[in-house]
Amino acid sequence: MSFQVKGWQLNIGIRVDLSTLLHIIEAIGILSFACSGFIEARRKDMDIVGVFTVAFITAFGGGTLRDLLLDRRPLFWVEHHEYTLMVFIVALVATPILPHLRSGLSEKIIVIADAVGLGVFSVGGTSLALAAEMPVFVCVMMGVITGIFGGVLRDVICNEIPLVFRRGHLYATCSFAGCWTFLLCDWLLPHTLAVGAGVFVTCALRYLSIRFDLKLPG
Amino acid sequence: MSFQVKGWQLNIGIRVDLSTLLHIIEAIGILSFACSGFIEARRKDMDIVGVFTVAFITAFGGGTLRDLLLDRRPLFWVEHHEYTLMVFIVALVATPILPHLRSGLSEKIIVIADAVGLGVFSVGGTSLALAAEMPVFVCVMMGVITGIFGGVLRDVICNEIPLVFRRGHLYATCSFAGCWTFLLCDWLLPHTLAVGAGVFVTCALRYLSIRFDLKLPG
Amino acid sequence: MSFQVKGWQLNIGIRVDLSTLLHIIEAIGILSFACSGFIEARRKDMDIVGVFTVAFITAFGGGTLRDLLLDRRPLFWVEHHEYTLMVFIVALVATPILPHLRSGLSEKIIVIADAVGLGVFSVGGTSLALAAEMPVFVCVMMGVITGIFGGVLRDVICNEIPLVFRRGHLYATCSFAGCWTFLLCDWLLPHTLAVGAGVFVTCALRYLSIRFDLKLPG
Repeated sequence: MSFQVKGWQLNIGIRVDLSTLLHIIEAIGILSFACSGFIEARRKDMDIVGVFTVAFITAFGGGTLRDLLLDRRPLFWVEHHEYTLMVFIVALVATPILPHLRSGLSEKIIVIADAVGLGVFSVGGTSLALAAEMPVFVCVMMGVITGIFGGVLRDVICNEIPLVFRRGHLYATCSFAGCWTFLLCDWLLPHTLAVGAGVFVTCALRYLSIRFDLKLPG
Repeated sequence: MSFQVKGWQLNIGIRVDLSTLLHIIEAIGILSFACSGFIEARRKDMDIVGVFTVAFITAFGGGTLRDLLLDRRPLFWVEHHEYTLMVFIVALVATPILPHLRSGLSEKIIVIADAVGLGVFSVGGTSLALAAEMPVFVCVMMGVITGIFGGVLRDVICNEIPLVFRRGHLYATCSFAGCWTFLLCDWLLPHTLAVGAGVFVTCALRYLSIRFDLKLPG
Repeated sequence: MSFQVKGWQLNIGIRVDLSTLLHIIEAIGILSFACSGFIEARRKDMDIVGVFTVAFITAFGGGTLRDLLLDRRPLFWVEHHEYTLMVFIVALVATPILPHLRSGLSEKIIVIADAVGLGVFSVGGTSLALAAEMPVFVCVMMGVITGIFGGVLRDVICNEIPLVFRRGHLYATCSFAGCWTFLLCDWLLPHTLAVGAGVFVTCALRYLSIRFDLKLPG
């Protein structure tokens, strides 16, 4: 996933930093989605191939569906195939380590990383749909699809009703709010600031939802 | 989803009426599919985001899969994004109302609307595949996919074996018969008449199947 | 699915034979995947429409997903729509016969045919991705996706955790090994020999896994 960098006329040093920052955040998002795939697959007593495949589908499923719907080729994980190798290597390394780490701390880290991933994927999806000149409402839907469908596919393959749709803390709603924030800000502010605002709103809402136990009605 | 209107050389007044009629029928089909998504999602105790997403997937899933397979862009719900807004608004309005309405009457309305939707989507899918110059058997399969896959995706996400495939009243078979009827009539009659015949056969067969408890062998 | 035939400069008689041989093997693979769909759908007490659809999805699902990801059109089952008719006819013929045949012998035949199908689909997927100039690691993943996703979709629709991911005899691993073997050999040897080597390694590893009860750790 790559962001249009409208602000490239600015100081190049800053641009590179922002672009690098976005890539690092993106990698964090992918790895955290992959992690949630690992954990779910292990709960279902899958072997190492299953664990890797579910991790891969969780990490890349949302972006792949978005690329199929927008008809973007090459797919983002083909364009940046270093990400697939990264997930593959992490899967090999994490599989023996993960059971020993599963403390309260690691769960907290995953929740935070997952929120960042949700924000980055959602805003990134909206940004790409906007660049493809989709109508505004469709842009938001592409953002939400990119953000949540990795997890939906993970749960479908693990034979569960998707966690996102079950009554619980806000999740898709955070993505929805973040996408609208990004769109509104992108109209008024430089692109990178708008991206930051969208990701921030997603993460903040997710944090507030967990902190104050906010849920949607049924 | 839009139909080729071969008969446009005819009186414009009539053409507009037919085209408007098809859009109204199409909207009825989408809403009725969305309704079946609402009901299923509520049974699974999903929150409002889940209910909306499942309704959306049920309403647009079949057509989206068809567009992906035929490589049609923009997707029909991007081209007619008023449909997505319609489903969104209806989801907001229907969620508090629906539980109070669930009488025998509302179930009958849904069965009828669903049959009309099945017919319109199946024939529409076949028509688009024909326009894309697919082989005849593939056209029929695209029609059946367009008609039934919204419901299949709904049931997969709700963690059920798809209703369409379980032993019950004829459903995919009605779509299959309607698609063949449309193809045969389209060879002999004006396009709009052929569309009407295909939709009629689908609905009639569905009605007869429920009325006389017709089922396929296992 | 068609293979590049690099070696066409050779004796034409041999080329036709190899090409015919590949088509026969491919048809065997499709039919054996379709068979596993039949059997699974019947276990779930589906009616004839369900049985046919699940057989179809199992046989063509992996290749369709690959074609969507590589943006290949027409889809392989549209290009070779004789395959869909073949599955349709076999479904009609096999449905009444199959229950009487389910002996140890028929299960053995299915396991062998399925292994051949896995090999042919995996190597074919890798070959097509290579022709589309994908990076090496992506080629292997396309091969594995082509080989295993028919079965994954079958199990998702039948509301099971995919057999491929559950702890059992090697399956995706055989596909993975076969794809790498094909890629390495394709670098050194004529294309058809490389195809043969990839299919052989897949089948041999699958055989060894069942024969000596080899499994992956969890």
